[in-house]
Amino acid sequence: MTAQTGQTQSHDERIIISVDAMGGDEGPAAIVAGCDVSARKNPDVFFILHGPEAEISALVARRKSLQGRCEVRDATGVVTMDDKPSQVVRNSKGTSMWSAIEAVRDGSASVAVSCGNTGALMALSMIRLRKLPGVNRPAIAVLYPSSNQQGFNVLLDVGADIKADADDLLRYALMGMSYARNGLDLPRPRVGLLNVGTEEHKGRTELKEAFDLIKEQQDPAGFDFVGFVEGGDISGDLCDVIVTDGFTGNVAIKTGEGTANLVGNRLREAFRYTPLSRLASLLAYPSLRRLKKKIDPRRVNGGVFLGLNGTVVKSHGSADATGVSSAIKLAAQLAHIQFTDKLAARVAGLPAEEKAQ
Amino acid sequence: MTAQTGQTQSHDERIIISVDAMGGDEGPAAIVAGCDVSARKNPDVFFILHGPEAEISALVARRKSLQGRCEVRDATGVVTMDDKPSQVVRNSKGTSMWSAIEAVRDGSASVAVSCGNTGALMALSMIRLRKLPGVNRPAIAVLYPSSNQQGFNVLLDVGADIKADADDLLRYALMGMSYARNGLDLPRPRVGLLNVGTEEHKGRTELKEAFDLIKEQQDPAGFDFVGFVEGGDISGDLCDVIVTDGFTGNVAIKTGEGTANLVGNRLREAFRYTPLSRLASLLAYPSLRRLKKKIDPRRVNGGVFLGLNGTVVKSHGSADATGVSSAIKLAAQLAHIQFTDKLAARVAGLPAEEKAQ
Repeated sequence: MTAQTGQTQSHDERIIISVDAMGGDEGPAAIVAGCDVSARKNPDVFFILHGPEAEISALVARRKSLQGRCEVRDATGVVTMDDKPSQVVRNSKGTSMWSAIEAVRDGSASVAVSCGNTGALMALSMIRLRKLPGVNRPAIAVLYPSSNQQGFNVLLDVGADIKADADDLLRYALMGMSYARNGLDLPRPRVGLLNVGTEEHKGRTELKEAFDLIKEQQDPAGFDFVGFVEGGDISGDLCDVIVTDGFTGNVAIKTGEGTANLVGNRLREAFRYTPLSRLASLLAYPSLRRLKKKIDPRRVNGGVFLGLNGTVVKSHGSADATGVSSAIKLAAQLAHIQFTDKLAARVAGLPAEEKAQ
Repeated sequence: MTAQTGQTQSHDERIIISVDAMGGDEGPAAIVAGCDVSARKNPDVFFILHGPEAEISALVARRKSLQGRCEVRDATGVVTMDDKPSQVVRNSKGTSMWSAIEAVRDGSASVAVSCGNTGALMALSMIRLRKLPGVNRPAIAVLYPSSNQQGFNVLLDVGADIKADADDLLRYALMGMSYARNGLDLPRPRVGLLNVGTEEHKGRTELKEAFDLIKEQQDPAGFDFVGFVEGGDISGDLCDVIVTDGFTGNVAIKTGEGTANLVGNRLREAFRYTPLSRLASLLAYPSLRRLKKKIDPRRVNGGVFLGLNGTVVKSHGSADATGVSSAIKLAAQLAHIQFTDKLAARVAGLPAEEKAQ
């Protein structure tokens, strides 16, 4: 069932984003509020929202900016955070997540956004959108705060799969490079391969193989390969794209996030310590607020699934309106530049099994 | 050749630390300065220093606190940061690193400290000290700043080996538990196994196997197994010991260190931003300094090699006097409680191949 909450305008530059209104921890109100924030900032963005029609339409009706820019597709089922990906693949038809991906599959929207269960979202995206030719393992890429000029590095894979062989790592390098070029406007991104040391003789066998494969591709594909990099380079300025397997990448982002939170909490304690430091924190408030905004994880909210016939943005499960609007902003940017087509062209340029050569 | 720089006192509580005076980036002066800091703080600590006799004795002679508390053992060779472990094992006899380990092997010192090349130090330690019965892969454990009451969690392995099977992970759990009990005074440490999710069905095969092995040992060995933990828990308060393979652990500590540095740099920028924030930073200076001291990596400087017949503390290559004295403090504490014997008893309590059962 499809309910139109207002007349959608005809517009050449229209970007249509498919949004799973359910999966988030904060419920559909936070997600609709995030759409509202985005709609007010970007007049070209339109939405297809997926969830129980009556509930979602009522939430949309309260937001003036969304009038005439939202279609609600009724989907009563919800994929929960506890559902196992294997079950979801079998039983999720009719859920808001399934419906959100379906809108990309049938061409009604360019990019899908969901705050739901990552494993389930990746499993469903793979089944419904299918992998790009030449890609064996899709990857999730995130923007990690860094001391680079653009303020972020691309890190992938952060958890689509727990394993990656040398050929997968080569594809990750190409997909990450394409994301950095199109998403961060870097004409010739610098790519590094994550290892425990920078010497060529170090590390696991598949990393040494991947080193050679990626090196071979730097000139034909138009990037600079800086070789092996270490954990500290994820937030550094030695390269723009860091390639690793999904197990290591997932541990790395969560360790980094935890450590940043610990430093932040200790800082707050330090400022509460004496009357003088409490006064100082008042004076420094505008600067600290600017800093917080700069490193606020909600403002770079969104892992992008790379390697599929269609782009899916995974937002944090706990995202609030700011977090959701940030994921939508990223989705809109990727839709605008027709990222899926560019990525497909990039990965398809390689033989199906480079490794076999 | 052995040179005595003064009369060593007879003392019941004497703790003798063997120190490689060469390997560090800052040269022997920083290392002798670190010994000086430690000697002034702890009257029970005595040193055997390894390096070129004339050079080291001259440095020692300038430090009043070291008079009568230092023996210098002449070693003219130096293991550099670029030497490969395999070469070092063949050609390092007569180096300061070799000599420092030898003093633990022959019983003249309880614990060795070196700022040198980690791979070479581990390879030499394994050859000269040998692995404890029941240990297949030794591990390097570090104290990672955390929101726990004790302020630190034990993380291992952070880079002794790039692989670990289920049985290795079980030994890491036992060794880490013993380190937390003896080094952090936790009678019943909580142990977690690092993974990409907390559900039991997730992760690599060896992790699922290790999960069962560690769970079985929690009651006989006297710790609490909290199950799978994630990257964010390394700095959290869910557990006291985090067990992982050396590849993942190494990436995690370097990612955490890099991210903490990034946040610190951004904070300094924020405080320079306006005249008001510069004034605030002056007022907050004492509190910020206290914070810096609390999270200063130099103050928790020292990875401990676990699983050998003898304890070796690896200090940061770039450690200054503060860093070196912190590594010596850790070494002295471990020597004082006769940690090597306690650890050996702990690991030997298990059948040689628990996994095979």
